[in-house]
Amino acid sequence: MQFSIYQPALLHMIQVVSKAVAVRTTKQVLTGILIETDAASLTVTAYDLELGIQDTIHSDELNRLDVTTPGSIVLPARYLSEVVRKLPSDTVSISVSNNYMTSIECGQVEFHLHGIDSEEFPKLPLFQSGTQIQLPSNVLGDFIRTTTFAASTSEVRPVLTGTHVQYTDGTLNFTATDGLRLATRTASFEGADIQNWNAIIPSKSLSELARLLPNDETPTNIQLTDSHSLFVIGDTYFYTRLIDGTYPDTSRIIPKAQRTEIHLNVKSMSSAIDRAALIARDRDNHMVRLEVQGNTLTFSSSSPEIGNVSESVNATEKAGEDFQIAFNAKYVLDALSVFDDDEVVVRFNGSNQPFTIQQAEGDVGLQLISPVLMR
Amino acid sequence: MQFSIYQPALLHMIQVVSKAVAVRTTKQVLTGILIETDAASLTVTAYDLELGIQDTIHSDELNRLDVTTPGSIVLPARYLSEVVRKLPSDTVSISVSNNYMTSIECGQVEFHLHGIDSEEFPKLPLFQSGTQIQLPSNVLGDFIRTTTFAASTSEVRPVLTGTHVQYTDGTLNFTATDGLRLATRTASFEGADIQNWNAIIPSKSLSELARLLPNDETPTNIQLTDSHSLFVIGDTYFYTRLIDGTYPDTSRIIPKAQRTEIHLNVKSMSSAIDRAALIARDRDNHMVRLEVQGNTLTFSSSSPEIGNVSESVNATEKAGEDFQIAFNAKYVLDALSVFDDDEVVVRFNGSNQPFTIQQAEGDVGLQLISPVLMR
Repeated sequence: MQFSIYQPALLHMIQVVSKAVAVRTTKQVLTGILIETDAASLTVTAYDLELGIQDTIHSDELNRLDVTTPGSIVLPARYLSEVVRKLPSDTVSISVSNNYMTSIECGQVEFHLHGIDSEEFPKLPLFQSGTQIQLPSNVLGDFIRTTTFAASTSEVRPVLTGTHVQYTDGTLNFTATDGLRLATRTASFEGADIQNWNAIIPSKSLSELARLLPNDETPTNIQLTDSHSLFVIGDTYFYTRLIDGTYPDTSRIIPKAQRTEIHLNVKSMSSAIDRAALIARDRDNHMVRLEVQGNTLTFSSSSPEIGNVSESVNATEKAGEDFQIAFNAKYVLDALSVFDDDEVVVRFNGSNQPFTIQQAEGDVGLQLISPVLMR
Repeated sequence: MQFSIYQPALLHMIQVVSKAVAVRTTKQVLTGILIETDAASLTVTAYDLELGIQDTIHSDELNRLDVTTPGSIVLPARYLSEVVRKLPSDTVSISVSNNYMTSIECGQVEFHLHGIDSEEFPKLPLFQSGTQIQLPSNVLGDFIRTTTFAASTSEVRPVLTGTHVQYTDGTLNFTATDGLRLATRTASFEGADIQNWNAIIPSKSLSELARLLPNDETPTNIQLTDSHSLFVIGDTYFYTRLIDGTYPDTSRIIPKAQRTEIHLNVKSMSSAIDRAALIARDRDNHMVRLEVQGNTLTFSSSSPEIGNVSESVNATEKAGEDFQIAFNAKYVLDALSVFDDDEVVVRFNGSNQPFTIQQAEGDVGLQLISPVLMR
């Protein structure tokens, strides 16, 4: 194989795929990046057997890709990315000689890296024209950003480490929960002429996908098989395995009514909890208390060793009874970070029931948090 | 004690002193910050018994300091700094009540932190009008930046963890060495009418001092006793203990002649070594080779597992014999970082002798590096 390419173009491709390079593995080829060329295109692939990312470019004036001899090689990802990153912004020539030794030249610099036979690189999952849906990339990114953080990070119940993605009769829903909090978002996509589907996608993979999604309406095409999903963004292919199992029915967890409804500014609420959490942070549950009396919300926290804090915030609207509740500050701050600097509606059902947070105007989904039971 | 102050002013003081707060200690009071007020001033102090920093402000319109009751308290540094950092930019009221419980109020927020009796806080070293020298802060900062990094980080020979600071007949010299490399800088300060002195100052303390020095000609006043030094920058007092012992005579290490003298651009040299170091970095000595042939310098490195790299750079001037040498890339990169993007003169005495780097024009001192002996 022999080709040349503009250094920034190659670096960008390596950075796109690098999140799918295996970190801890005994199989050396998985720590590599597969580089393949044909007459006028270059494809770069990383695949740790759970997550696979493949990026392709076609020769143009910007990327200066010029393939002399098509071929393929696997190069160690760690060295390849650092070498390319440290090369000058100029044309880089790459050629593979005997024994997979690969030369990387740029100006007066010449690197040689030991490569691995591309035949050893695992094959990406096969997708044939299965069920698919097309979403604007910014919408998909926003769905991910507002839900996946609520998934579990513990492998005790593997399905909870995933995000439940459902498409039913033109309505798309993402739901994630770790058992103590839940984030869910729903929207209609009229005109998508496909059958219903649902899948449990690893939340970690979705977070990586979100980094690759352009923040505009570029369509992302989503395809599913029984074992994998594929997201296609332009010439970037993002593969992830699905999580086996049945996702719990979360619809019955979301309360249908409330005993207290409060409207208030997101920023005042999150600043008050952020400060109260300073005193609470060394305790396992980051417990902050909230006392609602009339239109006044008082957030407080205390620790016998450190001290205490209390802060009052005024609600813009309040309906229903006064009460007290305690919650994990981290969970509520995570949930509030979903909302822009605007008004939210928080709905409570007394001290021992989960409460929900939604935007007062507009819809970025629903956040639900279980309280810490008060002693 | 009771006073109020503008939050940004208090935060700034806490940040100035925070580097002297003890991190690992069994003596709780050393993890605190001492806050003292008199009628119209506030003094904040941290002292881990090695490094002490004290900052004072006097009431003015900007800092809004208003002392109602003078007094003093020690507050836990970690909580104090986070609490103050998270308060709004507004007037903060601090008052101490019974049992050293301290209230910190700002708008609707009220914190209470457990304080410690200020009597328990250690006294800073005493300085009476001893020998002193005055330097522009930017000059002092530059002396520190270009020398202290070469000091040893190992406690095997404690004197080498320090920087040797000498003032002899109007000439100031800073020297640091870890035994394999050396950085030294000298300048004359005419008119300083003081006696000669010399001290071994912990390099870590000097690095912290450098962060506090304004990058302008504001004078820094340096005072010495047998055991401590004090740097006074405006209303900030920076104390550090000295290192006991005799600093080695480094003057005889610096070669007086050279067999090869090369002028070249700093940036080309450091880029080439930086790239070569990619292949060398997993080896203990980060070994990069240099071959000088005519006006061409070829930097190279190789590893049986990874591959190899070579890069040629042209000298702007070269006098003397051709040769090969090997060196620790990290040491040379550290040394080159001292020089601006300009021409340096590198003087060699064959493969097995230390080489020196100096600026071609201007004087930012001398960097000396021992080679890695070639097999």
